[in-house]
Amino acid sequence: MVEKMCIIVSKGTLDMAYPPFILATTAAAMGFDVHMFFTFWGLNILVKGKADKLKLPGAMSLFTGMMKKKMKKLNIPSISEFIKKAKEAGVKLYACETTMQVMDIKPEDLIPEVDNIVGASTFMDLASDSKMVLFI
Amino acid sequence: MVEKMCIIVSKGTLDMAYPPFILATTAAAMGFDVHMFFTFWGLNILVKGKADKLKLPGAMSLFTGMMKKKMKKLNIPSISEFIKKAKEAGVKLYACETTMQVMDIKPEDLIPEVDNIVGASTFMDLASDSKMVLFI
Amino acid sequence: MVEKMCIIVSKGTLDMAYPPFILATTAAAMGFDVHMFFTFWGLNILVKGKADKLKLPGAMSLFTGMMKKKMKKLNIPSISEFIKKAKEAGVKLYACETTMQVMDIKPEDLIPEVDNIVGASTFMDLASDSKMVLFI
Repeated sequence: MVEKMCIIVSKGTLDMAYPPFILATTAAAMGFDVHMFFTFWGLNILVKGKADKLKLPGAMSLFTGMMKKKMKKLNIPSISEFIKKAKEAGVKLYACETTMQVMDIKPEDLIPEVDNIVGASTFMDLASDSKMVLFI
Repeated sequence: MVEKMCIIVSKGTLDMAYPPFILATTAAAMGFDVHMFFTFWGLNILVKGKADKLKLPGAMSLFTGMMKKKMKKLNIPSISEFIKKAKEAGVKLYACETTMQVMDIKPEDLIPEVDNIVGASTFMDLASDSKMVLFI
Repeated sequence: MVEKMCIIVSKGTLDMAYPPFILATTAAAMGFDVHMFFTFWGLNILVKGKADKLKLPGAMSLFTGMMKKKMKKLNIPSISEFIKKAKEAGVKLYACETTMQVMDIKPEDLIPEVDNIVGASTFMDLASDSKMVLFI
């Protein structure tokens, strides 16, 4: 049986957008069935045009460009490239329904890579029989 | 056998107070036996009069009122309402003993909904045979 | 069979450095085989001379000294003491290879307590058969 991994992505800063995608694509490569639920600030990552405009938090935001340059030099994918890689590896991306209402985000505002718009209970159904569930 | 879910609540900002309660009440509705451990800044949520005064973090704190209004309009419970809902659903709330000492919080400062004041090892005992353990 | 616990340490502020070490040493005392993976800002904790210079985040950084004094008075170990305690309890400490490249941290910059420098996939191998996996 294929094991499931669920990741709740709740942050929208560049530093906290990388870990969920690194873990998701690594787990998918190991054969896990991976599901990512984007909620609160994390939902921003799925809004058209936002993935590559994420910044480092607070006062560190000034160093965002420097960090991106360094990562590019090291051949680390950008967040939009990681979204593509995740999809190619079979990772499912879900947008949190409640967050969309709170932040006035419409379905057409989301990137086409989103698999579905779901509520917390749909996601918890997936999580409840997962081998790993991470809140990031 | 009823499965357990444990949530460690370590943040005290409004945005990070919602996810643990949404997940806890959703899991309880699905039949999980849910335990929440409030530690570090998260303990503030259990201090009398604080639950409904939580703010968004950093510079976003200015938008706290706006977000609360929007959530009210959408019929999303406030944090104090979520505490009641969680209790009604059988969720257990624990205050971290060490955090109380560090922050000079007395047992009488806590809301009556708190089930117990416990240390990390008591909580880890619960976590060690849980189906899901989340650190938020 | 000894059960495994994996903790991903992604934050480098004093408040978020304590929870992973408290949970790791508690779990090790309960008989868990504990593995800690230090990534992003969390890697700073393993850089020589940094563990005891961590600060509270943002505007709260001004209260770092006050909190440290209070914790000392309560006999709570400092982070460098917790690193020693964790090692004595058999906890394994891993530095994230990619973070080292991004932040220009050399192997000789790390404290000798580090067990190994590993990539995400090595860590996910450990995580995939763990009883608990936490992202902090």
